[in-house]
Amino acid sequence: MTPTITLDKSAVTEYPLHELIRNRWSPRAFSSRAVAAEKLGSLFEAARWAASSRNEQPWRFIVVTREDEEAFNRAFSCLMEGNQKWNHTVPVLLFGIAKRNWSHNSNPNAYAWYDLGQAVATLALQAVAEGLAVHQMGGFHKDRVRELFAIPEDYEPVVAVAVGYRGEVEDLPEDQRQREVAPRNRKPLSELVFEGDWGEPSSLASR
Amino acid sequence: MTPTITLDKSAVTEYPLHELIRNRWSPRAFSSRAVAAEKLGSLFEAARWAASSRNEQPWRFIVVTREDEEAFNRAFSCLMEGNQKWNHTVPVLLFGIAKRNWSHNSNPNAYAWYDLGQAVATLALQAVAEGLAVHQMGGFHKDRVRELFAIPEDYEPVVAVAVGYRGEVEDLPEDQRQREVAPRNRKPLSELVFEGDWGEPSSLASR
Repeated sequence: MTPTITLDKSAVTEYPLHELIRNRWSPRAFSSRAVAAEKLGSLFEAARWAASSRNEQPWRFIVVTREDEEAFNRAFSCLMEGNQKWNHTVPVLLFGIAKRNWSHNSNPNAYAWYDLGQAVATLALQAVAEGLAVHQMGGFHKDRVRELFAIPEDYEPVVAVAVGYRGEVEDLPEDQRQREVAPRNRKPLSELVFEGDWGEPSSLASR
Repeated sequence: MTPTITLDKSAVTEYPLHELIRNRWSPRAFSSRAVAAEKLGSLFEAARWAASSRNEQPWRFIVVTREDEEAFNRAFSCLMEGNQKWNHTVPVLLFGIAKRNWSHNSNPNAYAWYDLGQAVATLALQAVAEGLAVHQMGGFHKDRVRELFAIPEDYEPVVAVAVGYRGEVEDLPEDQRQREVAPRNRKPLSELVFEGDWGEPSSLASR
């Protein structure tokens, strides 16, 4: 059997892209190989150095690995069924949590989710540099995470993230193999980037 | 005069970080040097290939350069005064705009801002690869952007972004020079990453 670990889903781009960005995608096939603490440290370091509004750093993380079976099972139990199907081999799960309110005045921070997004995107790119992959999930039971991990009211579970080495497509459930090997797609730049006025595609998009 | 373009504000980290991430920060001193369309194209390409919930890609951008003086002035007029002070040399401004609702059912997309954050963070890292810098701003008049650029109701201006080459600290207004050369700081990992339960610093943070 050919090792599908070579599955190439790097982005097909109109403009050149740094390899770290080009090679990031969200696999479902993960190996059960453990991830060294040093590498996990670099992932969180990357998140830590993301930009945030007023340098609020409204990101927090709960991380569990299979070495702590009890905590891992607790985290796993928070995933929705569809995600549990392909997470059964994942060695590391984490939750990205947003601090809802500004530290300086306790008013709601409209950028809390935005900045958490910046942190997790940066973490995902560091993962590529480490030879790892991550797959973010909105499909998890947020109230259950709050309860099982004692998240305070001021903080909000936003995203679950699978972290590990890529695995074999053949090990995925039948119905998920097709998604795994399907080409990645994105809207064309002409629908995303406007120049001068809304809806007028940038000249960047028309070359 | 020593060219302060050599100002090194790469992150001081506990764990190794990919250089693209380590070298990203948000300067205020920008050169007026124009940015080639090819490079701008790569920035938006990077944003385009970010991850998003259900691959919704809820990010849109309006970009203006000084080549289109009228549009540039319109964008500049939307920045708050404090930001106008250091943006007077910036050659490119863009607005990051979130699509509020899911395309498949028009319900509110809770991840719209989160995913826009992912896209802009990725754009900012591609900028490092291009020798450029970006500085995100929440300090702009969102209603004015909506009005002057005819943003539809379903879309929401979230962030303004200055893009360009780094400039000389000496060219900044006096009160902004100190901020520019001040060391960058972040919370320690022990306050950001918990293991097993909320508030229990991960062992990753204690080495």
